[in-house]
Amino acid sequence: MSLIARLTSSLGDKAVVTDPDVLDSHRNDHASFCTAGVPLVLVRPSSTAEVQEVLRACSEYGVPVVTQGARTGLSGAANALDGCLLLSTSRLDRILEVSVEDQVAVVQPGVVNSALSAAVLEKGLFYPPDPSSWEMSTIGGNIATNAGGLCCVKYGVTGDFVRALEVVLASGEVIRTGRRSVKGVAGYDVTRLIVGSEGTLGVVTEATLALRPAPEAALTAAATFLSIEDGIAAAAAVMASGLRPSLLEFLDGLTARAIQDYRDMGLPADVGSLLIAQSDRGPRAAADVAEIARICTAFGAVEVAEASDAEESRLLLEARRLVNPALELRGVTLVDDIAVPRSKLVALLNGVGEIGAKYDVQIYCPGHVGDGNMHPTVVFDRDDPAAESRALEAFGAVMQLGLSLGGTITGEHGIGKLKRQWLAQELGPIELSLQRQLKSVFDPAGLLNPDKLFL
Amino acid sequence: MSLIARLTSSLGDKAVVTDPDVLDSHRNDHASFCTAGVPLVLVRPSSTAEVQEVLRACSEYGVPVVTQGARTGLSGAANALDGCLLLSTSRLDRILEVSVEDQVAVVQPGVVNSALSAAVLEKGLFYPPDPSSWEMSTIGGNIATNAGGLCCVKYGVTGDFVRALEVVLASGEVIRTGRRSVKGVAGYDVTRLIVGSEGTLGVVTEATLALRPAPEAALTAAATFLSIEDGIAAAAAVMASGLRPSLLEFLDGLTARAIQDYRDMGLPADVGSLLIAQSDRGPRAAADVAEIARICTAFGAVEVAEASDAEESRLLLEARRLVNPALELRGVTLVDDIAVPRSKLVALLNGVGEIGAKYDVQIYCPGHVGDGNMHPTVVFDRDDPAAESRALEAFGAVMQLGLSLGGTITGEHGIGKLKRQWLAQELGPIELSLQRQLKSVFDPAGLLNPDKLFL
Repeated sequence: MSLIARLTSSLGDKAVVTDPDVLDSHRNDHASFCTAGVPLVLVRPSSTAEVQEVLRACSEYGVPVVTQGARTGLSGAANALDGCLLLSTSRLDRILEVSVEDQVAVVQPGVVNSALSAAVLEKGLFYPPDPSSWEMSTIGGNIATNAGGLCCVKYGVTGDFVRALEVVLASGEVIRTGRRSVKGVAGYDVTRLIVGSEGTLGVVTEATLALRPAPEAALTAAATFLSIEDGIAAAAAVMASGLRPSLLEFLDGLTARAIQDYRDMGLPADVGSLLIAQSDRGPRAAADVAEIARICTAFGAVEVAEASDAEESRLLLEARRLVNPALELRGVTLVDDIAVPRSKLVALLNGVGEIGAKYDVQIYCPGHVGDGNMHPTVVFDRDDPAAESRALEAFGAVMQLGLSLGGTITGEHGIGKLKRQWLAQELGPIELSLQRQLKSVFDPAGLLNPDKLFL
Repeated sequence: MSLIARLTSSLGDKAVVTDPDVLDSHRNDHASFCTAGVPLVLVRPSSTAEVQEVLRACSEYGVPVVTQGARTGLSGAANALDGCLLLSTSRLDRILEVSVEDQVAVVQPGVVNSALSAAVLEKGLFYPPDPSSWEMSTIGGNIATNAGGLCCVKYGVTGDFVRALEVVLASGEVIRTGRRSVKGVAGYDVTRLIVGSEGTLGVVTEATLALRPAPEAALTAAATFLSIEDGIAAAAAVMASGLRPSLLEFLDGLTARAIQDYRDMGLPADVGSLLIAQSDRGPRAAADVAEIARICTAFGAVEVAEASDAEESRLLLEARRLVNPALELRGVTLVDDIAVPRSKLVALLNGVGEIGAKYDVQIYCPGHVGDGNMHPTVVFDRDDPAAESRALEAFGAVMQLGLSLGGTITGEHGIGKLKRQWLAQELGPIELSLQRQLKSVFDPAGLLNPDKLFL
């Protein structure tokens, strides 16, 4: 019996998709410049037992498995390889429990982030991790990439909210890592090893997530500066102040001007950088925002706007939201995701400017400045074939720069296929070898997303 | 050449201790009821290179290595085994850097927690993890056990503050895991795997730790209740309120009465439970404490005391600090460390009472109620040999109860030698086997703390 026949027999017709058009539409995630193979089949299990059956069958047939959530990832980690089985979590989409008393949610991996957020908010609770893709991306994908987002400057990243996981191993066996309690130190932290492992160690079939009480109303401030240095210095001062903003975003002048060209936001032509901050502490937010405004002014802000209500806050955040459409209008975008210690941000931004000049490409630099996590975005003309290779060289040079400043090649997007060659450099040969051996413990035959992470 | 001669030759006389009295005094940590072997030698390296030399030599000679900090652990993880080398981190005690801009400290493992806290406070910064042993225990030991403490209810545990580690593997090779930046998702999270691994995966020689701005002045409230149920319900309401107390401690009536017998704290004879809470938000602490007091009253507190200054706060915390001396006066203490979801705390406390009655021992129940992490403490008469075996049975029964309530056998003390038989039960056979294989990746010959964690 073929693998497809076996799975059709055990999971039913509806769970097994071989339509070439559907398969073709599932080959890629949102990453640019990553190749993808032609999958053999797309399977949509609806229970842990069915995931076990899929993995047992794939182990027997030696067929590689690529697990896919909403395919909103930016590094190609969910891309197909030739002859693989695509394991979609789309039918594992139930919120199993929201506990007010324990402040946890128990969910299947296919639950969309925004659906979880809405469900817990109904009970006065809050699931903070908010990657930009939150209206589409799934909790399983968020766990696979240890996704960040805007509010992690205050609340932390996905991994900080994962208490326990049910994971199906390549063998089809199931483990339940972690625990529902807040604390726990029994044995090695396998939960944190699975988080961010990009589908290479197992398939998450259930997650117990920590929640917090719902935040109060938020208010926003935005400040423009004449230089990059002033904006970065103001951001550092905000972080040193103990205010703990719930969002702290930076746009360099180049990005701010691209947004102003796209839509009139009243940004001056000589803007050097723009800082957007938020406090979500309800009645205390106005005082927080006033203090942030005071700090920005002290560090040379030429204009500071403080929102006094939700609508004004939304307008001030608009500039941040327009980054992607504004840049995409200018050409093909290649979004990087490096993170450096905050003290190196000016060096990073200046270095990125030099790299742009050297390779004759535009590099825009928005980012989560409170975490030192920037998204230098190389933009080039889609009709200029030579520009593409210059852009890719610049992309690599930016990662080298990040590493040379004590940072990382990826703050929140992951390695996937896009950055495998640089991972070896970040880890060094000894840790790289160790990490490969860790994968072998979970997946001795190398069937789980085998062309990702490692070259 | 013998191992001792080789290490004396390469590290010098002072680093290699064979005096039997010194060795004898270093056989144990603070755990009760754990056996310890007779070590071959105690070695005190003073650099990463020297740690590498020690591990290379031990690998060549096949001598097991037990790494020791201040030996304040409570599970026997630092206990010697026969013929082992004790690797003391006492000379690796330098604070290498405190960066205000990046809010990080870089330290060697032998730095005492309180020394780090004092050093960073001088720069207006704060290292939150505060195990009760903080005035003696080392950062290396805190990392090895993923230590918790009083203030982790607000700030998190040790692992939440570890950004990067330098680790010497059993082979003598060095890896540098993690990164100095706030975020980073390049490869598997080996840093979190090392945290809490109790010296079984490698020897940490340097740690980059996240810091926070120094907290503001703290104020304390204490409330007495007639029953366990009322105190637990009030604690749950405080946690649900969004106040985020910087400390939330619980004492059951039995413990409260033992303290009152030890020193007059004005606790009534019919006290059912006692709750102590703190807010460290300076000018806002008084309002927080008033709100906590209001919640406690609403949940049936018979008396609520609100401190109005630091001295009154200290007095209210005194009861918590007197737990150990008060209980030790009553007999031999066997301290457990289970954590359960908060919704199971009443079931846990009632079950512990039943276990005490069944085995005819007293079990006191203080704990970090905000995290659901309780320290049921079995106390028995040191002159009654039959009591010891009943106490050990009760100790096991409490862990079984914790597991049956969806909790863990250890919230912050670790497995060490004390709880190896229960670890297998918590993890189950598949994850246990996987965890053993993870150890083998780091330590193929099984030389690093080989008699710990796993039976």
